Amino acid sequence: MGKRDEERILLAHGGGGILMRELISRVTGKLGDQGGEPLQDSAVLTLGGSTVAFTTDSFVVSPLFFPGGDIGRLAVFGTVNDLAVSGARPLFISLSLILEEGLELEVLERIVDSIASAAGEAGVRVVTGDTKVVENGKADGLFITTTGLGTIVEGEGVSSANARPGDAVIVNGTIGEHGLAILSLREGIEFGAGLKSDTAPLSNLIVPMLEKTSGIHAMRDATRGGLAAVLNEIAADSNACIRIDESRIPVSEAVQTGCELMGYEPLHIANEGKFVTVVDGDHTDEVLSFMRAHPLGVRAVVIGHVEAGPAGHVILETVLGGERVIDIPYGDLLPRIC
Amino acid sequence: MGKRDEERILLAHGGGGILMRELISRVTGKLGDQGGEPLQDSAVLTLGGSTVAFTTDSFVVSPLFFPGGDIGRLAVFGTVNDLAVSGARPLFISLSLILEEGLELEVLERIVDSIASAAGEAGVRVVTGDTKVVENGKADGLFITTTGLGTIVEGEGVSSANARPGDAVIVNGTIGEHGLAILSLREGIEFGAGLKSDTAPLSNLIVPMLEKTSGIHAMRDATRGGLAAVLNEIAADSNACIRIDESRIPVSEAVQTGCELMGYEPLHIANEGKFVTVVDGDHTDEVLSFMRAHPLGVRAVVIGHVEAGPAGHVILETVLGGERVIDIPYGDLLPRIC
Repeated sequence: MGKRDEERILLAHGGGGILMRELISRVTGKLGDQGGEPLQDSAVLTLGGSTVAFTTDSFVVSPLFFPGGDIGRLAVFGTVNDLAVSGARPLFISLSLILEEGLELEVLERIVDSIASAAGEAGVRVVTGDTKVVENGKADGLFITTTGLGTIVEGEGVSSANARPGDAVIVNGTIGEHGLAILSLREGIEFGAGLKSDTAPLSNLIVPMLEKTSGIHAMRDATRGGLAAVLNEIAADSNACIRIDESRIPVSEAVQTGCELMGYEPLHIANEGKFVTVVDGDHTDEVLSFMRAHPLGVRAVVIGHVEAGPAGHVILETVLGGERVIDIPYGDLLPRIC
Repeated sequence: MGKRDEERILLAHGGGGILMRELISRVTGKLGDQGGEPLQDSAVLTLGGSTVAFTTDSFVVSPLFFPGGDIGRLAVFGTVNDLAVSGARPLFISLSLILEEGLELEVLERIVDSIASAAGEAGVRVVTGDTKVVENGKADGLFITTTGLGTIVEGEGVSSANARPGDAVIVNGTIGEHGLAILSLREGIEFGAGLKSDTAPLSNLIVPMLEKTSGIHAMRDATRGGLAAVLNEIAADSNACIRIDESRIPVSEAVQTGCELMGYEPLHIANEGKFVTVVDGDHTDEVLSFMRAHPLGVRAVVIGHVEAGPAGHVILETVLGGERVIDIPYGDLLPRIC
């Protein structure tokens, strides 16, 4: 180690915060030269006359199994969710495995079973794959990369750049459960009974919602960096201000306790089954009713709205009546949660 | 370690041999339940009315840089080549990085530069990506997963199941260079001057060849498991026999020396810029001439032909006039060569 820290990759580069964004824009910048557009979570492409969404994610969560799921479910749902929030119906996924020498075959089989069952739940087909093996000590059990393909649901133009003043901001349920469940397991601390990952195939709610309701302008799933990160992305991309009301943000008692104990902010904790919907003010009730009628949206609630300015900012109205700016976290709060 | 070896992942499971096939069919079997078809290197799908090819590969090559290329070039070309041999024009790729904490940013930047330049050479756009970071000691510098999307070139039905008796078997140049170049570097042994990886964007040759020639029945790129593995795959999938002539197989002096020294068979060594084409006997000269006029096919040659039986077998006529069956290697000859 002769190099200074800032010249090396840090764990914090993987956390969904500002450091990760800087790294990605450094990477994206180079690739942009031959593509023209920055790398998105999900790309919308014209392919042989159809409009398709294409997204990829690697999963390195530790441990491999946790309350509410495992790396396999996370990989399938993570990819399916990225497609859904870009307005697409997920159809196909590819599966690439990096296995560490010495991994128990039984563990691999349990995870593959879980992938198969998750794909069934989400209605996608795993159609192509790859397997690599590295020496013991050169990986950590198992890493999964899933890539998803879907077709854009007609009649909608959903983009993080489309939020407009007057829009309502909805979240589909309680936040912070995935990150806190992983943390609780790793640290061996109980934050509350029943705390488990919220990993879920959001497409099962989002696709029919896109087909049957109107006025949806933007959606994002609140994974790494939590609600704070996605609200900031939408505010920045739409050149608008998002104002949210702390008292309305749904947080379970276990997550509240865990965050207080560990000094975290629920808005910064990763979710795997929660997403933000920005909807035209005239269609808020319609979208909210649709969500609440679905098991993945029973606790859906309006947490705020979009204003013209200060553009690019997220402002929280606190329970005490104050205001503060909600930033994207800087580094990594919780490494390897997905 | 309480488990017996056969209950754990071995390095040999990653080698492109029989062990890997067994593992993949174990994995595939479970996923087949909800898809119906076995996982292929490349899936051909109907998506919104278009026929597209979709393929994924993880790259874990060690070391990251080697004569003739690096992990970035390998990742782009490997994915592009899988699309091309399935009869598709590569258009888009996704890029997912797993970085080890402590990796020098300069190394990452060199590899990303290389990815950008390789994508330019192959005429594909990198459109979406992901980045994860794991702790020092939980990966090995950098792993890359690339997933490719392309459109099927019209008018062709290229499949490893389409080889027919009377077809000629062509290889586009000298074999074994990629595997031997990596081995030479790792072991610190010189096998011959100028030995380097043959990694190349085969689509630049294959796509125009598909458009401008006729009679191509099957193609496979000869990566893990080498020429032996892909010939066996075609023989098995087509329920035919492939008979090849040892004296016609193009092998450079450096690869010949290296294989003799290390006790390897050139037919088993991985390539990253060589592919097999099975072509109708009446179109052999046309396809061969087309290949030879392209820089990636200058040394293309007919190495054998397809017969009805013994079905599923690959038979080598040796330089001494004998015959032997060429099997897929059992385990891993050279771990982490891609």
